[in-house]
Amino acid sequence: MSAVSVSIVGASGYSGAELVRILARHPNVTIQTLFANTSAGKRLDDVYPWFRGLVDKSFEPFTIEAASQSDLVFVALPSGEAMSIVPDLLARGTRVIDLGGDFRLKDPSLYARYYSQTHASPQHLAGAVYGLPELNRKSIAGAQLVANPGCYPTGAILPLYPLVKDGAVNPAGITISSLSGVSGAGRKASVDLSFVEVNETVKAYRIGTHQHIPEIQTVLSHSSGKPVAPTFVPHLIPITRGIYTSIFANLASDYSVADIQKMYDRYYGSEPFVRFTTPSAPEIRNVVYSNFIDIGFHLYPENNQLIILSTIDNLVKGAAGQAVQNMNIMCGFQETEGLK
Amino acid sequence: MSAVSVSIVGASGYSGAELVRILARHPNVTIQTLFANTSAGKRLDDVYPWFRGLVDKSFEPFTIEAASQSDLVFVALPSGEAMSIVPDLLARGTRVIDLGGDFRLKDPSLYARYYSQTHASPQHLAGAVYGLPELNRKSIAGAQLVANPGCYPTGAILPLYPLVKDGAVNPAGITISSLSGVSGAGRKASVDLSFVEVNETVKAYRIGTHQHIPEIQTVLSHSSGKPVAPTFVPHLIPITRGIYTSIFANLASDYSVADIQKMYDRYYGSEPFVRFTTPSAPEIRNVVYSNFIDIGFHLYPENNQLIILSTIDNLVKGAAGQAVQNMNIMCGFQETEGLK
Amino acid sequence: MSAVSVSIVGASGYSGAELVRILARHPNVTIQTLFANTSAGKRLDDVYPWFRGLVDKSFEPFTIEAASQSDLVFVALPSGEAMSIVPDLLARGTRVIDLGGDFRLKDPSLYARYYSQTHASPQHLAGAVYGLPELNRKSIAGAQLVANPGCYPTGAILPLYPLVKDGAVNPAGITISSLSGVSGAGRKASVDLSFVEVNETVKAYRIGTHQHIPEIQTVLSHSSGKPVAPTFVPHLIPITRGIYTSIFANLASDYSVADIQKMYDRYYGSEPFVRFTTPSAPEIRNVVYSNFIDIGFHLYPENNQLIILSTIDNLVKGAAGQAVQNMNIMCGFQETEGLK
Amino acid sequence: MSAVSVSIVGASGYSGAELVRILARHPNVTIQTLFANTSAGKRLDDVYPWFRGLVDKSFEPFTIEAASQSDLVFVALPSGEAMSIVPDLLARGTRVIDLGGDFRLKDPSLYARYYSQTHASPQHLAGAVYGLPELNRKSIAGAQLVANPGCYPTGAILPLYPLVKDGAVNPAGITISSLSGVSGAGRKASVDLSFVEVNETVKAYRIGTHQHIPEIQTVLSHSSGKPVAPTFVPHLIPITRGIYTSIFANLASDYSVADIQKMYDRYYGSEPFVRFTTPSAPEIRNVVYSNFIDIGFHLYPENNQLIILSTIDNLVKGAAGQAVQNMNIMCGFQETEGLK
Repeated sequence: MSAVSVSIVGASGYSGAELVRILARHPNVTIQTLFANTSAGKRLDDVYPWFRGLVDKSFEPFTIEAASQSDLVFVALPSGEAMSIVPDLLARGTRVIDLGGDFRLKDPSLYARYYSQTHASPQHLAGAVYGLPELNRKSIAGAQLVANPGCYPTGAILPLYPLVKDGAVNPAGITISSLSGVSGAGRKASVDLSFVEVNETVKAYRIGTHQHIPEIQTVLSHSSGKPVAPTFVPHLIPITRGIYTSIFANLASDYSVADIQKMYDRYYGSEPFVRFTTPSAPEIRNVVYSNFIDIGFHLYPENNQLIILSTIDNLVKGAAGQAVQNMNIMCGFQETEGLK
Repeated sequence: MSAVSVSIVGASGYSGAELVRILARHPNVTIQTLFANTSAGKRLDDVYPWFRGLVDKSFEPFTIEAASQSDLVFVALPSGEAMSIVPDLLARGTRVIDLGGDFRLKDPSLYARYYSQTHASPQHLAGAVYGLPELNRKSIAGAQLVANPGCYPTGAILPLYPLVKDGAVNPAGITISSLSGVSGAGRKASVDLSFVEVNETVKAYRIGTHQHIPEIQTVLSHSSGKPVAPTFVPHLIPITRGIYTSIFANLASDYSVADIQKMYDRYYGSEPFVRFTTPSAPEIRNVVYSNFIDIGFHLYPENNQLIILSTIDNLVKGAAGQAVQNMNIMCGFQETEGLK
Repeated sequence: MSAVSVSIVGASGYSGAELVRILARHPNVTIQTLFANTSAGKRLDDVYPWFRGLVDKSFEPFTIEAASQSDLVFVALPSGEAMSIVPDLLARGTRVIDLGGDFRLKDPSLYARYYSQTHASPQHLAGAVYGLPELNRKSIAGAQLVANPGCYPTGAILPLYPLVKDGAVNPAGITISSLSGVSGAGRKASVDLSFVEVNETVKAYRIGTHQHIPEIQTVLSHSSGKPVAPTFVPHLIPITRGIYTSIFANLASDYSVADIQKMYDRYYGSEPFVRFTTPSAPEIRNVVYSNFIDIGFHLYPENNQLIILSTIDNLVKGAAGQAVQNMNIMCGFQETEGLK
Repeated sequence: MSAVSVSIVGASGYSGAELVRILARHPNVTIQTLFANTSAGKRLDDVYPWFRGLVDKSFEPFTIEAASQSDLVFVALPSGEAMSIVPDLLARGTRVIDLGGDFRLKDPSLYARYYSQTHASPQHLAGAVYGLPELNRKSIAGAQLVANPGCYPTGAILPLYPLVKDGAVNPAGITISSLSGVSGAGRKASVDLSFVEVNETVKAYRIGTHQHIPEIQTVLSHSSGKPVAPTFVPHLIPITRGIYTSIFANLASDYSVADIQKMYDRYYGSEPFVRFTTPSAPEIRNVVYSNFIDIGFHLYPENNQLIILSTIDNLVKGAAGQAVQNMNIMCGFQETEGLK
C-alpha cells in the first residue's frame, strides 16, 4: 500500500489541527501542505504549541495549484467557503473530503434557508457522497467528493438509523436534545464563546433554525426510506470536547432490551467504531480523543418510549476522525488505520 | 412583625448551609440552632469558611427538645431521615419545612418503590402541604408541615402546570430532559462525585427510577386535574449549581407565541420569582444564587410541539430559597423577604 | 444621611455590571445613568439578563453634561480611556472613582512605560488618592478623585504592607506569584480568552511587563517608607472569579506565628473586610461575591521564609466592591454599607 | 527485540489505568495481569469504560506468585503499600518500577517523617535507582528496582538541575510554587476532592510538610553536588490533569537568555521529552496526554532573578509515561517507544 499525499485547507482551525494530530501518526499518509488564511506564514507549533517536536510544518496561503498536487484534500473551512474552491479541486482530479456543511444537503433551497446564502456550486450536490461510513461505506469508497457529516448529525443519525429503518420506532414524534462542548463552535474571537460567558452555565440555542436540522432529516429519511423530521434542540455546555445526544422516540410495538440490542447488532455488530453501553448510559469522557460513538438505550415502558443516548468527540467522530475514516475507505487502507 | 426563631436540622449539608446564607440576612428571623451529625461540635465557619466574620455559630447534636424550642424547623436531612423526627416535632407544635423527599408523596407505596424503604410515618403524608408557592400559596400559609419540592420537580412542574391545566398541551407524551449541577447530589465522599470523574463529561442516570418521577407525576396530575406521566431523564453536568430543564410537549391546538405567553402571564404575571425570557432561551448563570425560575418557550410548528426551557439554582429555588419563601408565607412576612 | 446619585461610565463591562449589582442594593444610593459605548441603547438586562426584574435601566451614550449631574461617577473604562474624561468631570466638581489604572501611578513616565502610551492628564496624578481604604482611609474621605486599586495589587499590597512597614520581612527579595480568574481580563472578544483556550490549562503571562508591577512597587514603597520592588508573576487559571496570591518573603529575624498574627492584628484588627485563616490556607471560593480579603501565612523556618497567601474576588474587593467601599468613605456612609 | 511481559499492581487507580493506556499500544510489551484490591473481579472496562473494545482484561487479586511471573512489574499502589511487596518481587528476580514514594528517599528517617510511618524494607533503599532518565539513564538501564519520581519533583527537578549543577543560580533561596490538577490526588472517595469543593477555587496545602519536599531536596542536592533545599508550596487547582511549576531563583552572576538556553541545551539538547518554550511561557494544555516536559524561563533583572516555568502531565511524565520511559531504558527498547 503506497502512501497518499494529503493537504488540509483551513488547517489552523480546531478540526484542521485535529486532522494534523491524527494524520501525523497515520502510516500511509504524507501531510503535504497546511493551508490557512490569517495564520499563513506562522508555524503550526506557534498556533498549537503541542505539536512542537512532533510535526514540523508551517501554514501556507491557499492556491488551487498547490492544493491540487495532493492526492486528497481535506477542506476544513467554515461552511460557505468550501463551495467556492471545491469545484476547482474536483476539476483537476483531486479527491476531496469537505468537513463543512456545503455539500451535505442535496437540495440547494434547503442550503439557502439554513445556511442563509445561495449555494455557489449546486451542480456538485448530487454527486457528493455523505460520509457516514456505517451507512454509505460502498459509495464512499468510490467517491471523488465526500461530504463529512456534521457533529450533531453523527451523534443523532447513527443511533436512529437502524430503529427507523427497521420500523422499531415511529418515524413521527422523534425528539433529539443535544449537548455540545464549546470546540464545536470553532476557533474564533467572540464574547459569546469566552470562558466567563460559557463557564458554569448552559444555554439552548438556534431552536428550529440550526443548520443540522435538514441534514439529520434528509439523511435519515433517505437512508431509511421513511419521512423523518425529528425535533432538534442543541445546548451549549461548559466542556471543551464532546457531544451528548439524548433521543426520545415512540416504540412501534413491544420490544425488549434484547430485541433492540439484536437489531443494533445486526446493523453495527461488525462496525469498528460503534460501541454499546446498555444497561449503563454512555459518558462523554469515554469517547474523548477517540473515533468511537458509544450508544446506550433504555425502555421507558410507562410511555411506550425508547430513550437512546449517544456520545462522540465532536472533533473526532464528529469531524476529523470520521474524515480520516472516510479517507481510509477511499484509499483502500484498513478502516481503523490511525484511529485506534 | 416580630421575629421568628428557626433552627436547621442537617445544617452542615449544602442545602443547610444555603439556608444559613439566606436566613442570616433575613430581617425577621433569628437562627437559633444548627443541628448536625458528624459535624456536631465544629464551628460553621470551619466547615464553610466563607461564614467567618458573618455568622458566628457552631453545629450541635440534634435533640428533639432543643429543636422544638424554635418556632419553625427546617429539616435538611437526606431523604429517609426526616420521617423519623418530624412526627415528634409536629407533636410538640413546631412548624416544619422538610427539604427532603419524605413528605412529598401522598401514597406510601410510591415512596416505598422510589425511595427503596418503607415510610416510617405515613400518617403525616395526607396533611403535609407541597410547598410550591405558585400552586399552593394558601395551603402553605396555614400548614404545620410543608414538604419543600425537589429541585428537578420545581424546574419541571412550574413551566408545565399552566399548559396542562389549560389544556394547551397534550397531557400524554410529555418528555423532560434535565441537566443538573453537582451540588444537587449533596455533600458526600464519593468517587462518582469527585472532580476527575465529573469534569469534562456528561452522564444520564437513574432513567425510569429517579425518585422525582412520582413527584412530578402526582403533583402535576393533582394540580391540573388530568393524568400526566412525563418521561423524565436527568443528566449530571460539570457545573456546581443550577438545573436546566428542557421539556417537549405536543400542542393541543394552534397556538401562537403570544397565546402561550398570555396563558403564562395569567398564571404567573404577578409571581415575584417567575421570569420569562422568550424569544431568548434561559441560561443557568442568570439564576445562580437567586430564587428566580426563568422560563423560555419555542414553538416547533413542524412537529406541532412546544419546547419549554427553564433554569433554577438547585440550591435556591430548588431547595433553600423556596424553603424561605415558604417560611415567609407561613409566617406572614413579605414573600420576597430575604430573597431579592 | 441623604442619598447620593451616582453614574457609571463603562457600565457594560464586568466591573461595571458588578457595580450595578452592589449599588442596586445600597440603601443610600440612587443609580442615575449607566453609560456605555457599543452597548448604548441596549437594556442592562439584555446584556446581563440576571438583572431582569431587579434593575430596570438601559445604557446611554456618554456625555460629560449628563455624567456631571451625578454627585459621584464611577469610571469603569479600560485603562487609557479614563484620563481623557476625568479632567472634565473634576472641573465640574463631580467626585470620581476610577476603577482603571490611569490615576494609580504618580510618575507619568512609569505610566508611559507600563501602559504603552503618554498620559493625557498628568496634572491630576498628584492629587489622585490611591483607594486602598486599609492604608488611606483618611485621604479617601476627602478626595475628589480616587484611583481604585488594581486587582493583583489589592491581593498583594494588603498582606505585605504591615510586614514591610514593621520590618518583619526583608524588603528585598520578595516574590509574588498570582493566579487570576478570567473575568480579570474584562469582557471582550478574543481567541485567547475563549473557553477552549482557557479551560483545563494554566499560563503565566506578561512576566516583568505587567502594568501592576509599578503599582505594587510604588504603593508599597511609599506606604512603608522603604524601597520595595517585588518580583511579580501573574498566571491565568480556568475559573471565572478570584485571585490567589502566594507571596514569598525573607523574615528579618525570628518570628513566631503568634508574632506575625499580632502584627497583622495591630494593623487590621478592626478592619471590616480583612480576615485571617492561619493555620488554614485561604481558598478563593470563600471570598467569591464578597468584599473580603482572606489572608493566611506560614513560616518556612528551613529557609527563614514567610509564605503569605491571600484571596480576593477580583471583581469585588479587586474592583467594584472596593470602589463602593471608597464611595462609602467619601460620602460618610457606614463603610460596610451594601457590602455584607 | 522480543516482547517483555509486564504486570501492574494497583492497576485500578489513575496511574495504573494510564499505564494500561500507554502499554496497550506499546509494540514490545505484553500486559500479563492487572492486579487490584477492591476492584478485583471487575472488568477493566467496567471501571474505565473507554477501554471497551480496546483492552479486554479484568482485575485480579494480587499474589506474589502471579506477579513474579512477569518480567517486569509496575507497582502503582498508594505510598506505604509497595514496601511490603517489593522485597518479595525482588527476591524472585522480578524487575520492579514503583510509581509510589516508598523507594525514592535514601534515608529511612526522612521517610518516617514525611510519610508518617516506619519504612518496612529499608534495606532496599540504597539499591533503588531514582527513575529520572534525564539524570540517571545509565543506572536505570541496569536497575532491578526503579523508584519512579513524584509528579511535583519531576516538574521541579528537571528545570533546576542544570542551573544548580552549573552554578548558574544560587542554591540557597530557591522557591517552587506548583499548581496541580486533581488527578494527582488519586482516585478516592473524599469530600475534599469532590467537584463542588474543587471547582472554581484554589487552595494551597501541606506547606512545609508535603512528602515531595525531601525528594526534591535530596535528588537535587545529590545530583548537583550542592546542598539545595528549596521552599515548596503546592496548590490544588480545578483541572483534571497537569502540573504548572513556577520556580524563582537568584542568578549567581550575569546571564543572558541565550546563556541560559545554551546551558539547558548542553544538558537536554538531545533529550526526547524535554522542550523549551522561551520566550513564550509553557501551558499545561500543550503537554496533556504527552510525556513532554515544557520549560520556559525569564530573566527578572530588577531583582537578579531567574523565573523558570515548567509543565507536565502529572499522570504521564509525572507518573505512567515516565515509568514506561524507564521500562524502555531497562529493557533496551527505543526510549520513546509507545510514548510519542
